[in-house]
Amino acid sequence: MYRRQSLRWNGWGSLRSSFPLGEREAEFWDFVVDALGGRPLIGSPSVPIADVRIPASHLPESALTDLREIVGREHVRDDRRERAFHSMGRSYLDLIRLRRGELSVVPDAVVYPADHESVERVLGWCEKRSIAVIPFGGGSSVVGGVEALRGADHAGVVTLDTTRMDRLLALDLTSLTARFQTGVYGPVLQDALEAKGHTLGHYPQSFQFSTLGGWIAARGSGQQSARFGNAAAWLVAARVAAPTGTFETKPFPASAAGPDLNALIAGSEGSYGVITEATVRIRPRAEHQAGLAFLIRRWTDGISWARTIAQEGSCVSMLRLSDPTETAFMDRFGRVLRPSNLKRVTRWGLDALGYRDECALLLSLEGERGEVQRTTARLLRDALARGALYVGDSPVKSFHRNRFALPYLRDTLMERGVAVDTLETATAWAQLPALHQQVRSALENALREHADGGVVMAHVSHIYPAGGSLYYTFLFRQDLNRLKDQWQAIKRAASEAIVAGGGTISHHHGVGRDHREWLAAEKTRLGVDVLEGIKARLDPKGIMNPGKLIAGGDAH
Amino acid sequence: MYRRQSLRWNGWGSLRSSFPLGEREAEFWDFVVDALGGRPLIGSPSVPIADVRIPASHLPESALTDLREIVGREHVRDDRRERAFHSMGRSYLDLIRLRRGELSVVPDAVVYPADHESVERVLGWCEKRSIAVIPFGGGSSVVGGVEALRGADHAGVVTLDTTRMDRLLALDLTSLTARFQTGVYGPVLQDALEAKGHTLGHYPQSFQFSTLGGWIAARGSGQQSARFGNAAAWLVAARVAAPTGTFETKPFPASAAGPDLNALIAGSEGSYGVITEATVRIRPRAEHQAGLAFLIRRWTDGISWARTIAQEGSCVSMLRLSDPTETAFMDRFGRVLRPSNLKRVTRWGLDALGYRDECALLLSLEGERGEVQRTTARLLRDALARGALYVGDSPVKSFHRNRFALPYLRDTLMERGVAVDTLETATAWAQLPALHQQVRSALENALREHADGGVVMAHVSHIYPAGGSLYYTFLFRQDLNRLKDQWQAIKRAASEAIVAGGGTISHHHGVGRDHREWLAAEKTRLGVDVLEGIKARLDPKGIMNPGKLIAGGDAH
Repeated sequence: MYRRQSLRWNGWGSLRSSFPLGEREAEFWDFVVDALGGRPLIGSPSVPIADVRIPASHLPESALTDLREIVGREHVRDDRRERAFHSMGRSYLDLIRLRRGELSVVPDAVVYPADHESVERVLGWCEKRSIAVIPFGGGSSVVGGVEALRGADHAGVVTLDTTRMDRLLALDLTSLTARFQTGVYGPVLQDALEAKGHTLGHYPQSFQFSTLGGWIAARGSGQQSARFGNAAAWLVAARVAAPTGTFETKPFPASAAGPDLNALIAGSEGSYGVITEATVRIRPRAEHQAGLAFLIRRWTDGISWARTIAQEGSCVSMLRLSDPTETAFMDRFGRVLRPSNLKRVTRWGLDALGYRDECALLLSLEGERGEVQRTTARLLRDALARGALYVGDSPVKSFHRNRFALPYLRDTLMERGVAVDTLETATAWAQLPALHQQVRSALENALREHADGGVVMAHVSHIYPAGGSLYYTFLFRQDLNRLKDQWQAIKRAASEAIVAGGGTISHHHGVGRDHREWLAAEKTRLGVDVLEGIKARLDPKGIMNPGKLIAGGDAH
Repeated sequence: MYRRQSLRWNGWGSLRSSFPLGEREAEFWDFVVDALGGRPLIGSPSVPIADVRIPASHLPESALTDLREIVGREHVRDDRRERAFHSMGRSYLDLIRLRRGELSVVPDAVVYPADHESVERVLGWCEKRSIAVIPFGGGSSVVGGVEALRGADHAGVVTLDTTRMDRLLALDLTSLTARFQTGVYGPVLQDALEAKGHTLGHYPQSFQFSTLGGWIAARGSGQQSARFGNAAAWLVAARVAAPTGTFETKPFPASAAGPDLNALIAGSEGSYGVITEATVRIRPRAEHQAGLAFLIRRWTDGISWARTIAQEGSCVSMLRLSDPTETAFMDRFGRVLRPSNLKRVTRWGLDALGYRDECALLLSLEGERGEVQRTTARLLRDALARGALYVGDSPVKSFHRNRFALPYLRDTLMERGVAVDTLETATAWAQLPALHQQVRSALENALREHADGGVVMAHVSHIYPAGGSLYYTFLFRQDLNRLKDQWQAIKRAASEAIVAGGGTISHHHGVGRDHREWLAAEKTRLGVDVLEGIKARLDPKGIMNPGKLIAGGDAH
């Protein structure tokens, strides 16, 4: 696990890292100013932790003594930095509050249990005292999933940090499964598997600073989901410590013995208990990898090709189809950061060929060498038939090189009063083009109204036979007088468009606090009732993660 | 839908069909006698329906009038044959009672609603009067899933036959999904899709006489599950009429908005409500198909090869690896039914080559022509490397030709006092060889104790990267004085061995009444509690399918 002191308490990732603007900083800011309409930016620095007012703990010293007895003296923390670090996740809404030092909710204490039994004891202790428990892995939620909320009748709130639980418990190279404690961070998990020549293949953008338990709890997807599936797909079995006891599924490859309870664990977002151990499907590392990038003249042609790729089945592990705005923006961004004559010449060439509003399609392929070669050959043939322009593999390589760096850029932009946020959905192929346009329009209108304009771009990045995801990135100038209201108005506009257009309220970010309002529209009233019925059996007193998903409507 | 009069009320399938023994009937019986130790068989004919005592209906005429108003006059049935037909499923335990005319439980009436709204009204009416409701599609359950049980406090029991609801509601050839009413029988569904060049690819052995709703409710698998997955895999969305209202999921290709509620519908076995409509994933019919059969000298080598095939990924759509007993039995069975010099010579040749205890491996391949050819070539190479003998494609063709005929043979055998039953499980590859042996021994011991011997055979027939299924078929002489006790003792021995050996209590038959006792061992106590918590929200008065899965422990 990372030393907590090495991580930003009010921003992304490691204190030693930031987005590498290098010598091109001035040009980068010119580009941003230009993209946002030309007006100069206003500095908006964050408040140092020493100046942040942190509410006093609700827990008496005797409570801390009890907790220390359960998890060990040094594993109960109540210092300012620990409480601030664990106060919330890393959504845009979180960051604007963290950067201003507006920590109205912070955990009264943070505990780091070592194992399942210890988690059970913490939950038992908290339930007896009506103390809310927030399961916390990497804390990278972008939907308010780990905020230290408590219900009106809770005597306090304890954040249960899982990251001490990071051991590989069993590796079965015959059945291709691995059992881990769930507090393991992405890179540690991956290193343990790669040492044996295997991989889980789960690479969310948060990979470096998120944990296995978080991936499962949020039913997340990694960038290579086309090959490896989402957390629900690779989860074989799990162990959950709930206030009423231990709830466990078994590592059967398949079963027809009633409903699949793994499906209740994936996506449970801490509302039912703490996922402490998980058996996951692993695969031998692919023999061969390749990347292919194309430019396509029309967005709808790109969608049609993406659909074909999803439906015909192949060794494509990642597909990323950017809409014209995103393609143009990322092209300019790339030329700003790393200008080259080649890039300039390429752009001239494309202009000369009449390329405007083109879409970039990035593909990663992974598999047995012959299969990768055959798929490559077929895709190149298809490109010719579809009038798509093959532009080599360097855009894919560049994507893979930078894919974990972008979250740092959000902090950089906020220093100058520029907001960047993302949201995502998924829908059936037949609805996808219309939904893309509806959400884009809703965001553009909202930005016009609440931020005097901005940039909205999108891509398709997770594909399935039945449909695909849409991922939106939007930039706008912060209204420093109404930071929260501004964001909420924009978010609401997008969420309403998603629900009205037949999209899921989240393809991989989860529900947390931010999407609760739209959950019933998606699940039906009775569906939410069912989720609450499950909670009534696992957490009847409602101490688990109040205010998220379906838990404790009155949390504050 | 089939006319109910054209179906057997006390046996399998259509009255016009039976297992084709043809001119080889005498030889067939000799073979069976020989397999069961040589003693002659005793005739055990079934009781004609006219001689069966059927309990009087609990429903007053006014109730029938109400129901007729909801579903239409001709769609409420309370004649003897309808009530007998719907009294139970088609398990061995069901058949011994049906054939003896021991119908202690029968529905008081059978209703055939036309659509979701009509089902809702029936449920509302039944809930108000505390009348149990049994959802019934094809009625092919082999685990007691549709028996007309009611709880102690129920005023009656109505079977809700879904087979009038058999329409294709929507076909989306862009997103490759189809929406059906769930009472559609396998062949009707398949014809509707094939007319458009597509397939669901779900072929359980009950295919001809089971329905889409039943496949989903039991979380079933078809014989081609290696390509098409089980019901939980191809289910995209469903609509459930529950006593408390309509519970619906949406056809998103993927979502992270809380737990996946489709997973609660698949495997729900009528405990939560009636699945009335379902959106399923369809695929274009494969360009090319092929079959390959091999003989392998050692069972464990066969398992190892099956595992490799499952894990390396290919266009294998079906794998069936028979253990030595099953291989020998099916070989003899084939030679009895259709003797030929070629078969005799083949057997001599195998004997000469030292083949004893060999295992048959049948593979079906399906996909794009080149892919099928490449997989074929690879499998033939692998066979050489593994010392397996390629024996052509005719065993696979023969399997596909006869695959829906075998259930009829059960009726034939019972006429002569011979029991045949099947049970199945799945486990991780690492545990599979040991579990195979443990369950086999348990069955053999139980047959020795309760039936003076018999035949136990098994095959692996559903494969996954993490493990495979084991399917057991066992034959024994009926003890006509204790038919039920005899079967229960054998079943118990097998179920206990499965649970003790780390297998699921069912890979694809479901839980129903027969596996309830072992459900908590699989799901944990809290897991069962969760399933009950869901029921509390959807069916708080407990009218849905009492006595199955988790519903109404006191049903009788």
